[in-house]
Amino acid sequence: MNYSFIRWLVGWVLCIEAAFLLIPLGLCLGYGEPYAPDYLIAIAVTAIPGIAMAAKRPKNSSFFAREGFVATALSWIIMSLAGALPFFISGCIPNFVNALFEVISGFTTTGASILSDVEALPKSLLFWRSFTHWIGGMGVLVFLLALLPMTGGQSILIMRAESPGPSVGKLVPRLQRTAVYLYGIYLVMTVAEVIVLVIGGLDLFSALCISFGTAGTGGFGVLNDSFASYSAYVQIVVTVFMFLFGVNFNFYFYLTIKKLRAAFGMEEVRTYLFIFLAAVALVTVNLMTQMGGTFGYSLLHAVFQCSSIMTTTGFSSVDFDLWPTFSKTVLICLMFVGACAGSTGGGIKVSRVLMYFKNIGRELRRLIHPRTVTAVRIDGKAADRDMVASVNMWLLAYISVFFGSMLIISIDNFDFTTNFSAVAATLNNIGPGLSLVGPSRNFGDYSVLSKLVLMFDMLAGRLEIFPMLLMLRPATWKK
Amino acid sequence: MNYSFIRWLVGWVLCIEAAFLLIPLGLCLGYGEPYAPDYLIAIAVTAIPGIAMAAKRPKNSSFFAREGFVATALSWIIMSLAGALPFFISGCIPNFVNALFEVISGFTTTGASILSDVEALPKSLLFWRSFTHWIGGMGVLVFLLALLPMTGGQSILIMRAESPGPSVGKLVPRLQRTAVYLYGIYLVMTVAEVIVLVIGGLDLFSALCISFGTAGTGGFGVLNDSFASYSAYVQIVVTVFMFLFGVNFNFYFYLTIKKLRAAFGMEEVRTYLFIFLAAVALVTVNLMTQMGGTFGYSLLHAVFQCSSIMTTTGFSSVDFDLWPTFSKTVLICLMFVGACAGSTGGGIKVSRVLMYFKNIGRELRRLIHPRTVTAVRIDGKAADRDMVASVNMWLLAYISVFFGSMLIISIDNFDFTTNFSAVAATLNNIGPGLSLVGPSRNFGDYSVLSKLVLMFDMLAGRLEIFPMLLMLRPATWKK
Repeated sequence: MNYSFIRWLVGWVLCIEAAFLLIPLGLCLGYGEPYAPDYLIAIAVTAIPGIAMAAKRPKNSSFFAREGFVATALSWIIMSLAGALPFFISGCIPNFVNALFEVISGFTTTGASILSDVEALPKSLLFWRSFTHWIGGMGVLVFLLALLPMTGGQSILIMRAESPGPSVGKLVPRLQRTAVYLYGIYLVMTVAEVIVLVIGGLDLFSALCISFGTAGTGGFGVLNDSFASYSAYVQIVVTVFMFLFGVNFNFYFYLTIKKLRAAFGMEEVRTYLFIFLAAVALVTVNLMTQMGGTFGYSLLHAVFQCSSIMTTTGFSSVDFDLWPTFSKTVLICLMFVGACAGSTGGGIKVSRVLMYFKNIGRELRRLIHPRTVTAVRIDGKAADRDMVASVNMWLLAYISVFFGSMLIISIDNFDFTTNFSAVAATLNNIGPGLSLVGPSRNFGDYSVLSKLVLMFDMLAGRLEIFPMLLMLRPATWKK
Repeated sequence: MNYSFIRWLVGWVLCIEAAFLLIPLGLCLGYGEPYAPDYLIAIAVTAIPGIAMAAKRPKNSSFFAREGFVATALSWIIMSLAGALPFFISGCIPNFVNALFEVISGFTTTGASILSDVEALPKSLLFWRSFTHWIGGMGVLVFLLALLPMTGGQSILIMRAESPGPSVGKLVPRLQRTAVYLYGIYLVMTVAEVIVLVIGGLDLFSALCISFGTAGTGGFGVLNDSFASYSAYVQIVVTVFMFLFGVNFNFYFYLTIKKLRAAFGMEEVRTYLFIFLAAVALVTVNLMTQMGGTFGYSLLHAVFQCSSIMTTTGFSSVDFDLWPTFSKTVLICLMFVGACAGSTGGGIKVSRVLMYFKNIGRELRRLIHPRTVTAVRIDGKAADRDMVASVNMWLLAYISVFFGSMLIISIDNFDFTTNFSAVAATLNNIGPGLSLVGPSRNFGDYSVLSKLVLMFDMLAGRLEIFPMLLMLRPATWKK
């Protein structure tokens, strides 16, 4: 294991984070909040070891898959520990486990909260909380890749470990440039949302926080009722942007280079749209028939909630825990499907789900005609067997983590629906679940042990399971 | 598609079933119940088409995988339709959908009931209800294989479609003889249980019904409270036999031919024992700490319930729906794991679960050392890639059926726990679930649509998903 390289990389992550922390410090001073010393301590605690670790570039440049996974998982854990400091030192979240939960939930773009009263937080911390979504959405290491000179082998291994989805699409041959493009698209779309929201009359602060939450498909808001009290305009704008941030970013890249056919031909994006529309139709009809809602009301909330849950954002325009079971079951299915690979969203990802269904179809054909050899095709290209196998392995690991987590947190003796949806909401990086962790409730009642499990799940969900599983395996750490 | 061969086979199934129906008819006469004409009608309706279809052996002997699956699925459906007749004609279950649900639940060894008052059934029907478990446990087609002259190709395809587990182990080179051995072991163990129960003071009728339910890992009992009012002796005997019937029958075959090392070396059986003991320990401790039970009480019910649920039998010695969530979650995990392949139990099967975990371990190693080629080994032999792939495909199909079913039955607007456990209890052929379908409740409140879905799930669970999925695929039926 090339520990010196990992040390160097983690050091850089801390430096970047310290730099990012200057923004809420500025806001704190601007709004006249009394927390400036707390920020300064947090920045010092983050920056000093960061600079020390990043100062000396390691001579040993050997870098393998193992280093990629460990560097990524460690970066995320240490970044979260540092990110929790402002909440903890300021005393706004006096319990460090809770502060850590909140920040991991932020960076992993989950949006699950332990706070019952969000509005009580000072503005600078509200900003930091939402900003962690934005950093985590595209990935802090991808950000680093855009900055640091690294070899291609190192970059691709890091990017593979941090990016959502079964495979990493290099947009352009050079990976550093790919990272720049990705962050470029991300930034432009975020700014676009801020502008549209401000035009609709929202204040800049709320528009920024909401846009960070949307862009990262996070889900932290600035109001206690999430989106229930915003105007229909804001709800509709956010609905559209949530959906857009759940699309594979390759789509936007194709658009910018005017390859329209390639963009609209992407099977994953078309499936994503299809599942979304089907879910909206089912929920709308269900809300009209079983809750007696008008068409307009039912459609608005169905679109908002399906968009929010499928992209794994987790904003809520209503308390969907009060919806009929059918609508809730549709939402639970969407929780698992998740957004497109190569987006900022979580979940299993549409591309994997697509491959699973194609695999089932292929297996049914194969059972009847055992001698026919047919490959599973995605976007017209045959998926190779290793790819299919590894997508299946991923699912096995996902299921194991799911049931293992549910078993441990059930010691707290909450009901089955709460536990199931709590794991679903954290492992898929959504945020709210059902019952006791529904949209109007929070995760604060869970024990420390359960919170640790759910933090692990949020990180495992964001980093696609394996980097976190590898951390638990002693053999990973051998020299 | 070789329809004439399928017709011939289904005809034989009906003939066998008509013959089996003579037993409850005899009991009906013996107990002086007024239902003899109803049985005679049911037998006639079953036997006449059966004889007509089985009379002429088809000339066309071409038989492929497709025929194997379709013959099996169709046999089970038609056999269930006929098996429901005595309940329906006698008026004891006046609704045909309910009667069919009860009988499918019987044949598939699920044990989920729509009856709130089991004790109100006449004894002959109680016997028939439990006897369907015994027929379904080892499989009616395996029974036929022992009787009918068929080519090796035909037999193996039918056996593969009907037998539980990812692969069929031929005990001896000739498949007809394998079928005889399997039924022999099955019969001897069932008789053994009856004898031990009668020695303990149970009446012969109850001992027979209970033994059928245990042997088939079914779960239908003869009392409304399942096993709560039986003596500790009966509970312990049944616990032991449930566990024994969940063991891969190859184990017993090895024992009978005195290959002790092969028997006790079976990885699946050892894993089965290990998971069982771990579950019992967890539940016992949980019942003691969170429910304040004594060690003896907690252990007795933990052993009974874990044995009942893991083998997918579904007897209950207590209303485990009232247990702490942790114990319930352990039971839910056991529901999915299920019994050994090659036993009469359902669920995912220990051998598949074992393979899944080995696959995850292998993937973790492969991620770190991408160039190492390591195979997954079961019982010391490398599992070939096709086998691994097909076990994975099975899981994908299983998950799709699971969530698809949950979505449809959620229209009835029961709570999430009820729906989740209802599908888990039927697709894994267990019987009782949690909440509204818990051990003290039944499936009677679901709508006709939901019952149809759950019937499909019971058949899909018993026949390992694919035969039932193929029935839904139009291409299967092409000439």
